[in-house]
Amino acid sequence: MSKTSNTEIHLVNRPKGMPTDDDFSFVEKLITPLEENEILVKTLYLSVDPYMRGRMNDEKSYIPPFTLNEAIAGGVVAEVVESRSEHFQQGDIVTGNLKWGEYSIAKEQEIRTVDPTVAPISTHLGILGMPGLTAYFGLLDIGKPQAGETVVVSGAAGAVGSAVGQIAKIKGTRVVGIAGSSEKIDYLLNELGFDAAVNYKEDNFAKDLEAALADGVDVYYDNVGGVVSDEVMKHLNRNSRIAVCGAISSYNLTEPDIGPRVQGTTLIKNSVLMQGFTVGNYSTDFKRAAADLGKWLQEGKLTYEETIVDGFEQTIDAFVGLFEGKNLGKQIVKVAEPKYANI
Amino acid sequence: MSKTSNTEIHLVNRPKGMPTDDDFSFVEKLITPLEENEILVKTLYLSVDPYMRGRMNDEKSYIPPFTLNEAIAGGVVAEVVESRSEHFQQGDIVTGNLKWGEYSIAKEQEIRTVDPTVAPISTHLGILGMPGLTAYFGLLDIGKPQAGETVVVSGAAGAVGSAVGQIAKIKGTRVVGIAGSSEKIDYLLNELGFDAAVNYKEDNFAKDLEAALADGVDVYYDNVGGVVSDEVMKHLNRNSRIAVCGAISSYNLTEPDIGPRVQGTTLIKNSVLMQGFTVGNYSTDFKRAAADLGKWLQEGKLTYEETIVDGFEQTIDAFVGLFEGKNLGKQIVKVAEPKYANI
Repeated sequence: MSKTSNTEIHLVNRPKGMPTDDDFSFVEKLITPLEENEILVKTLYLSVDPYMRGRMNDEKSYIPPFTLNEAIAGGVVAEVVESRSEHFQQGDIVTGNLKWGEYSIAKEQEIRTVDPTVAPISTHLGILGMPGLTAYFGLLDIGKPQAGETVVVSGAAGAVGSAVGQIAKIKGTRVVGIAGSSEKIDYLLNELGFDAAVNYKEDNFAKDLEAALADGVDVYYDNVGGVVSDEVMKHLNRNSRIAVCGAISSYNLTEPDIGPRVQGTTLIKNSVLMQGFTVGNYSTDFKRAAADLGKWLQEGKLTYEETIVDGFEQTIDAFVGLFEGKNLGKQIVKVAEPKYANI
Repeated sequence: MSKTSNTEIHLVNRPKGMPTDDDFSFVEKLITPLEENEILVKTLYLSVDPYMRGRMNDEKSYIPPFTLNEAIAGGVVAEVVESRSEHFQQGDIVTGNLKWGEYSIAKEQEIRTVDPTVAPISTHLGILGMPGLTAYFGLLDIGKPQAGETVVVSGAAGAVGSAVGQIAKIKGTRVVGIAGSSEKIDYLLNELGFDAAVNYKEDNFAKDLEAALADGVDVYYDNVGGVVSDEVMKHLNRNSRIAVCGAISSYNLTEPDIGPRVQGTTLIKNSVLMQGFTVGNYSTDFKRAAADLGKWLQEGKLTYEETIVDGFEQTIDAFVGLFEGKNLGKQIVKVAEPKYANI
């Protein structure tokens, strides 16, 4: 192995509000020799995801906080450079939750091989990865959409939301998306076939939403929380379901997230279900879901968009951009070309 | 039939905030002759319930608003005075949703006979009636308490809450009640056998609650909403369930009910379920539930308290008293003694 050093991105301050460059540090580390059953991988693509902001706070949650002065970790697609595991060979394409680094040393159980001939390997960070699975389970297991019902999804042009809307269409529902630019609205209507799409940044948002929801809302897949969700919740039908996936509007708040309480006028009034979840709750069903997603992709029923920035040094900007709505579909950082894999 | 006139309570103004005497009028009405299949009943007991406040607003909800200048309607136990239905005889004790009046004319399908030998007839407005059923379904169908879990109930000394806590004890859980007076706390601990009880009106409420919830909350049966529920929700365990039954803290607000949004830090963080409901959702299962409640009552596993005021003219005060926490257990108005029934 010729490579002996590696750049990683460490969290050096817990961000107050929106993260800045000062909260992170690019750190040069020596690559230690592999122990038995370890694999050295070269990062090809890495994923930046809104949920990672929560891990930057020092708060107990469904996943532990990142440790200060250690590497941030997230979804990665990588190439095996060197392996002391019989399960992995040089040139294999793998995915897993690994360091934000140009290289990582993985244990066998931290990575799995992906087939690079089925779909572009970056899709394992998006439509065939965590965001696709998150869309699948939240919509189908919690939302339980029935043909003819109205499904609303916020953050509709993002990695999760765009999959939610398309799966909801596959299930025969009427789909209304909420997003934050005319480019995104155009994408939802004309590329993904949503039945309606509303721009929450327009002054007329409340009226536009009302017009799009003449039949009310049966399923609300919520990626954003905040005032957008307050508005959607005014239109809930009896026995409607809210899959609470994300609350990106609140992740960088420095003040408490305050709004209308939901108990009386929202939940009791219409016998509404709100269920918070994370995709990890469904890990025993990942295989089945991934098979469905792959099949829909191959049948052309499901499409996806990726916003790819080039260069490991772009990682922080790409991450912060998530909160500014800069991405269409899945935001990915391309870190390197493969060296050994023939793809 | 000697009786030809009847006093009813009409809603004459939609209350702003807490209802006052000016919002109601005691109106003398002639009793019209019965048509076929109608039954004239004399009100013995009537029920005042928090949910009725919502019907006094001119707002679409799960149940239509009361009509101005017409009689308010609610749970009643009554005696048949005169019947033109083969299903009801003079002297039968019946229950149904009828006018706040000394007498009512009921259609066959609006009332059902109750057996006065099983339990005091007033229990059909409480533990064996709507409040008991509400406790039963919200706790068991939504809360799904498992032995060893911690169940918290707010409004714990009321008609619904006191039943919730006892059913939760029958199911082998640890039960923590929240109520608003030392008399109620004493009742929960020493009469109902709750494991802990916390007074939300005490300055130390947050600390007392924290101390009572060292193992967190698995099921929260919420009758009150507002700041009490905000506090409980800080202690939710992973995969916990909130049965959202009532939000009495908000029913008389004249400003919007504002508080911490629940999406991010409550629901997603711990994969929490919140389900709003009304007892009517479960109407096809009422028989089974009533049988369980009756059995537990006869076995001495379930007890109840009633706060009974005497006199139809006390109805408004009894209703307003609900929002001041004046009742222990079920608040009932005794309107009259039976004339024909031998009980």
